[in-house]
Amino acid sequence: MVFMSEFLHVDTLEDACAKLEKHWRIKPRKVNMPLDEAAGRVLAEDVVSKIDVPPFDRAVFDGYAVRAMDTFGAGEESPVELTCVGSVRAGEWPKLKITRGQCVEISTGAPIPRGANAVIMVEYSTVGAKVVQIFRAVAPEENIAKRGSEIKHGTKVLGAGGVITPQVLGTLAAIGRKRAEVYSPPKVAVISSGAELVSAGSSLRWGKIYDVNGPAICRAVELCGGEANYLGVARDEPRSLANFVKRGLATCDVVVLSGGSSAGAGDIAPAVIDQMGKPGVIVHGLAMKPGKPAFVTVVRGKPIFGLPGYPVSALMVFDQLVAPYLRRLSGLPRAGRARVQAKLASKIISARGRRELVPVKLVREGRVVYAKPLFKGSGAITALSLADGYIDVLLNREIVEEGEVIEVNLFRGVEVA
Amino acid sequence: MVFMSEFLHVDTLEDACAKLEKHWRIKPRKVNMPLDEAAGRVLAEDVVSKIDVPPFDRAVFDGYAVRAMDTFGAGEESPVELTCVGSVRAGEWPKLKITRGQCVEISTGAPIPRGANAVIMVEYSTVGAKVVQIFRAVAPEENIAKRGSEIKHGTKVLGAGGVITPQVLGTLAAIGRKRAEVYSPPKVAVISSGAELVSAGSSLRWGKIYDVNGPAICRAVELCGGEANYLGVARDEPRSLANFVKRGLATCDVVVLSGGSSAGAGDIAPAVIDQMGKPGVIVHGLAMKPGKPAFVTVVRGKPIFGLPGYPVSALMVFDQLVAPYLRRLSGLPRAGRARVQAKLASKIISARGRRELVPVKLVREGRVVYAKPLFKGSGAITALSLADGYIDVLLNREIVEEGEVIEVNLFRGVEVA
Repeated sequence: MVFMSEFLHVDTLEDACAKLEKHWRIKPRKVNMPLDEAAGRVLAEDVVSKIDVPPFDRAVFDGYAVRAMDTFGAGEESPVELTCVGSVRAGEWPKLKITRGQCVEISTGAPIPRGANAVIMVEYSTVGAKVVQIFRAVAPEENIAKRGSEIKHGTKVLGAGGVITPQVLGTLAAIGRKRAEVYSPPKVAVISSGAELVSAGSSLRWGKIYDVNGPAICRAVELCGGEANYLGVARDEPRSLANFVKRGLATCDVVVLSGGSSAGAGDIAPAVIDQMGKPGVIVHGLAMKPGKPAFVTVVRGKPIFGLPGYPVSALMVFDQLVAPYLRRLSGLPRAGRARVQAKLASKIISARGRRELVPVKLVREGRVVYAKPLFKGSGAITALSLADGYIDVLLNREIVEEGEVIEVNLFRGVEVA
Repeated sequence: MVFMSEFLHVDTLEDACAKLEKHWRIKPRKVNMPLDEAAGRVLAEDVVSKIDVPPFDRAVFDGYAVRAMDTFGAGEESPVELTCVGSVRAGEWPKLKITRGQCVEISTGAPIPRGANAVIMVEYSTVGAKVVQIFRAVAPEENIAKRGSEIKHGTKVLGAGGVITPQVLGTLAAIGRKRAEVYSPPKVAVISSGAELVSAGSSLRWGKIYDVNGPAICRAVELCGGEANYLGVARDEPRSLANFVKRGLATCDVVVLSGGSSAGAGDIAPAVIDQMGKPGVIVHGLAMKPGKPAFVTVVRGKPIFGLPGYPVSALMVFDQLVAPYLRRLSGLPRAGRARVQAKLASKIISARGRRELVPVKLVREGRVVYAKPLFKGSGAITALSLADGYIDVLLNREIVEEGEVIEVNLFRGVEVA
């Protein structure tokens, strides 16, 4: 337990994560799902085909199924004549068999009848008559897609870790799969705390304001592949807070709490949660601006993250501290954050020795994209609605000059290729 | 009606779209939704706030609410003494009022009591006693966030057309909104056609193969903001096809049909659909490779798109022909396709006078991303599972050289910033 007296001992993000990972065993769960629900999630199994694709030798073109040797010597001037003994269309299963001098009319995708070992394209034959003239020789297996030529029974088709895209769905369908094992979305309890907060949709009595962080963080959780469960607003009061956190721990894998804008909100939570179980508060304060009021707790094997109350700060600290873990639990690539390059629109002066996250708005002028820093003066909601993302000014930078090309971390979640 | 005899008259994509838009009135629908369902969709209303944010004058810091004029002249060496007459915390509504020489203890976010017009930060005062010493003067309105200073009642907060991101959700929450008007996801019937096809999950009898396009196209529809309704597999037979298409027209806004790999599948559909209502088939064949078997039909005001049967071709033609319309119906930016730049890994030779879409696999080598063209020889499913996207070789290019930097259209849907 580290808090109150040790409040001034802040940890770097890396140290905070290292401490957390000592107490939290991060274990992505797997779940078997119908494919139409699994789209966009991440495969948690190596997929092995239980069938050959195609499952039989099939014609690649419309034409005639023949014995290749019967066509040898055929040419424009010297057609070979074969007797057509039937036809087979795609979807049918041919019962007939050909022998020397015979052929069968066949359509693209239809199974090759027994006895035949090549297909003559319709362009190189006469059509319709009982006796068919063939104007070209074919080699054995020509114009046939052999059984298993695309996917052999027992081979691995897709690897665990891939996102389920339209093509992956098509590939799974090709081998007849309706379900797949995917990483289960981590369940995340989202709690806002502050005596002045009420949830949107309720009536706003005097002295109250609407909770902004709850809905914003819930969506940020979803964009990391998580399933958000908004528990609502806890008062800044030990019993209320403890009850909300307990409910989160009972129903979810991770708890995310954000303070209201009142000073008390951030202070009371670590003390309350520290009482709830071992190891309690392990980080209180990040060496990052914003991040001083952030805390990390583990109670009975589950992590509880405390975020600042100021909305843009809450989203930025979420993105740095919480999002990578949610992505990992969802099986998504850890470094999947979407980034764009932009020119800094105005100089930033930062404190040396502290990392700083600066929210920015992206503005396109012609072909150049500028990142305009948003400063706190602009107001909490204004900053929130203007921010497209943020830049990360590292420990050892004091000044970032106007016009410098910087990387902007976008707020829109992961890039799933 | 144009088909059969006019099969060789192919249209460019632009001409095809122009013809379609003469017969199809594209009208995005709006729907009012709870915000937790609306996330990721597009706002269809200008959002005007019905409240002031903040809804009352509130303290920006912990400290004392004062009459500014009472503090004038205060300094480190010459504190002013005020009588503390009570306290107000965030979430409370103060009934008290201060008069000359009085102050009220106040916490961040709490409403300013009547009579007070500034806040002294706790750092510039003594604490706890009935008589408080103030070591600094404040100007009127200092350290107060005025009612409506962030959002004024009656002002537009968000504009129609924006994607509902975490920040937008936060902003809507700030003004108390629980629902919003968004563009309704267009309903898209997805039909596969081919006598040899069965849906994944069913048993595979001899001569049959699994339908690949249905599931892949359904997901591609969802990535454009649409709601896919997979109707299943129609046989290549007029009555079956007509029934499926009728069902699609009855329940959906758009119908997307893809042929099986059999030659018949693509040929029969336009003739059948042309019978179903005016104007019938308006485009049959696109001047694009792939695209020859593609068709565009309108029946009673609803479009029916016919895609090739070869899976990668189906996805590419979908992306060019159908996706922009679905995005438009969903309110998403039309040009929202995700693209990356890559170096072409091997030369492409294309036919002059025809646009060609070439599926590619992206391969990273060090810091360079290469696009490897996938040719048809690789097999339908192999090509599908390898393709990350495609490049668009324009009409007037014959050769694209190895090493040239080209733009790859990714298959993963739209970029929503």
